[in-house]
Amino acid sequence: MALSYFKYERVEDAQQKLLSLAGESMKRVEILDVRNAIGYILAEDIRSERDIPQNDIAHFDGYAIRSEDTKLASPKNPLRFKIAKEIKLTDRSSDYEIPCGEVIYVPTGCELPKNANAIVPVESVKREGDYIILTRPIAKGFHVIRKGSDIKKNEVILRKGAVIQGQHIKVLLDSGIFKVPVYKKPRVVVMPIGSELTNNLNEHRKKLETHSYLISHLIEKNGGIAMRKAPIPDDPNLISREVEEALENYDIIVTIGGASVGKMDFTWSEARRIKKPRLEIRGIKVHPGRVTSVVLFEKPIIMLPGLIQSTLSGTIFILLPLIRFLAGLPPSPLYPKFVGKVKSVIKIPEFKPFKRMRFIRRIESMDNEKEKFIDLLRYESFHSSVLLKADGIITIPENIDEISPNETLTVYGVYGLF
Amino acid sequence: MALSYFKYERVEDAQQKLLSLAGESMKRVEILDVRNAIGYILAEDIRSERDIPQNDIAHFDGYAIRSEDTKLASPKNPLRFKIAKEIKLTDRSSDYEIPCGEVIYVPTGCELPKNANAIVPVESVKREGDYIILTRPIAKGFHVIRKGSDIKKNEVILRKGAVIQGQHIKVLLDSGIFKVPVYKKPRVVVMPIGSELTNNLNEHRKKLETHSYLISHLIEKNGGIAMRKAPIPDDPNLISREVEEALENYDIIVTIGGASVGKMDFTWSEARRIKKPRLEIRGIKVHPGRVTSVVLFEKPIIMLPGLIQSTLSGTIFILLPLIRFLAGLPPSPLYPKFVGKVKSVIKIPEFKPFKRMRFIRRIESMDNEKEKFIDLLRYESFHSSVLLKADGIITIPENIDEISPNETLTVYGVYGLF
Repeated sequence: MALSYFKYERVEDAQQKLLSLAGESMKRVEILDVRNAIGYILAEDIRSERDIPQNDIAHFDGYAIRSEDTKLASPKNPLRFKIAKEIKLTDRSSDYEIPCGEVIYVPTGCELPKNANAIVPVESVKREGDYIILTRPIAKGFHVIRKGSDIKKNEVILRKGAVIQGQHIKVLLDSGIFKVPVYKKPRVVVMPIGSELTNNLNEHRKKLETHSYLISHLIEKNGGIAMRKAPIPDDPNLISREVEEALENYDIIVTIGGASVGKMDFTWSEARRIKKPRLEIRGIKVHPGRVTSVVLFEKPIIMLPGLIQSTLSGTIFILLPLIRFLAGLPPSPLYPKFVGKVKSVIKIPEFKPFKRMRFIRRIESMDNEKEKFIDLLRYESFHSSVLLKADGIITIPENIDEISPNETLTVYGVYGLF
Repeated sequence: MALSYFKYERVEDAQQKLLSLAGESMKRVEILDVRNAIGYILAEDIRSERDIPQNDIAHFDGYAIRSEDTKLASPKNPLRFKIAKEIKLTDRSSDYEIPCGEVIYVPTGCELPKNANAIVPVESVKREGDYIILTRPIAKGFHVIRKGSDIKKNEVILRKGAVIQGQHIKVLLDSGIFKVPVYKKPRVVVMPIGSELTNNLNEHRKKLETHSYLISHLIEKNGGIAMRKAPIPDDPNLISREVEEALENYDIIVTIGGASVGKMDFTWSEARRIKKPRLEIRGIKVHPGRVTSVVLFEKPIIMLPGLIQSTLSGTIFILLPLIRFLAGLPPSPLYPKFVGKVKSVIKIPEFKPFKRMRFIRRIESMDNEKEKFIDLLRYESFHSSVLLKADGIITIPENIDEISPNETLTVYGVYGLF
């Protein structure tokens, strides 16, 4: 039993061990059809396979012409050009050649005929029957969109690490790129543990298990593919059977609850019984969330505590960094949201040698000041209403137990949460 | 033919007409299972159906006790309490009553036995066999989490307009709310038009249609459900057949291309031929994007221009505001992203009576200044590479054609784009 007690590791150390051991060996690249790659992260720089436009094209509906034929045109010497043909967008216009002293009508976006090098827009020229009348010379390239003027062949159009959005799909396809290397999203199974839990809305004798909805949402918003499982009772045999089965089918196994050192906490001991782990993390130096533990074989089993804020802390500091790393994102799920001044003294004397995470709300200042004030939300670690009221979190470094009024703090958002 | 020419309407007027005529009559609320409501917008305030916790519960593993039995305990007068029973989380602990002078063991989170009103944590008390020894009185409510202390029955937990995320699913389910009223997401069909287009990656004689990937992504990111269609050739009969069919099956019909006044532009005339519209908008006073037009029957047909930046402008100023309104979001898809100082003079003399939209990039300042500088990206309206390079957009009001260096501008992001 003594073996299961906590050896709290610094969060940064735990993260670094997990990323270097599990992250590096599990990171995978897959080739996806561009059209299915929305939200994936590029694993390589991508270069265009062609010039865009692929050829010189007309910028307006107009008459394709050879600039050199127009040199002598002037108001005093109007030149007549026969409209040899009207080309449609669907024609292969490069099959056509302009006869000397003639023009070919082309619509906007149409490739220029073989020997054309300028466009006379329809509205800027007088037409008489099958002829247009030019009263000035037309410069080479006039109203022509040059081949490669948008994107050049072999130009890097997207960098490794880009999150693929709609505009990227468009430009990649335009560039002749139909497959892209992306980081494979880890498949993460979420397994709540506890005999008192049910996932059946109509089972009133048990407690409805709901943490997994939040954790799964955060997994999806941070680059993973989440699969929720029905709660597993506090039975060592059932737990080890389900965990072993999950190790076959998923990349990351997440348990919620049953990870502490109580009589009914079997997750840690059962996980370690499977085989010799490559890495063990038994508790992390963060409050809430200190019970968070990891056992790593080829794949990691990440054990989250059961009280919601602790579950969330373990998710933010241990689970999401690994998922994000595998998906090709920067590991931290935190982003700086705003900077605020502390309104009333913040005292966090408990767990002083630990990193602390606390939920913060923004206080609207009375006097239209530009400064934002922040305040600690009052809550207990089992409260979930705080998740509806918070504007973000602050983290308090080890060994600090008080933050004075008017000190300036950065409030962080969590991707997918707030 | 004259009828199809443009009567450019101010963007704000066009938006307002469309929202009041189409938006108000088409807005629908549906009742969804909470578990399927991620990303939907709440149509009503939601009140909790129960107290959370539903009963007084133990904050620690410990002994449930009656405070009044402990009054006389002191170091000089240690009191012995028999451990009458050990309750599990899965037991209905309110079935049990504590015999006078005894205690009942309960785990963390367990409902208190019928007449208990305090918890003595396991680690804070001496145990001798089946007895615990108390050397001080225990206050009423000690280590008890009070019924309703997290959320009270009938308390508003979520406001109308909230975008439902993982934490909301959790708290709604915890509160006994399994169904929620949300705004129905409009079903939007995206129909590219042009005989030169194909959606077949292997059809090299035609141009691959790719705008629809970007527009569909923006629709999805702004509260709609998008359905992409194969390109329709420039054939009036095919266009009207497809549009009429789409009017049966979708809430909003979006066409891309074929909406101008050229010989092959049939969308406007065919749409108006279907029946008498409730609203017609033939062009909007924005550049790029001025060709954007709308014909509204019960449902709107929104015609976007074909050059990508014009397509995007019509999407931002006309299509997305309607979708967002129907989905319950604030109509504008723009959000202030940062404020920057203009680096070099911005001249936009063309289309002076129009609102103008331009793509902007942020310039990294040389000297670690905190100020951000911005610059106009150089591009043509058919360029799509600008979508990869821009950090945001600026809008320039009517009748302004120059912005001086060092003027301060707000750069906007577009939800789903950048």
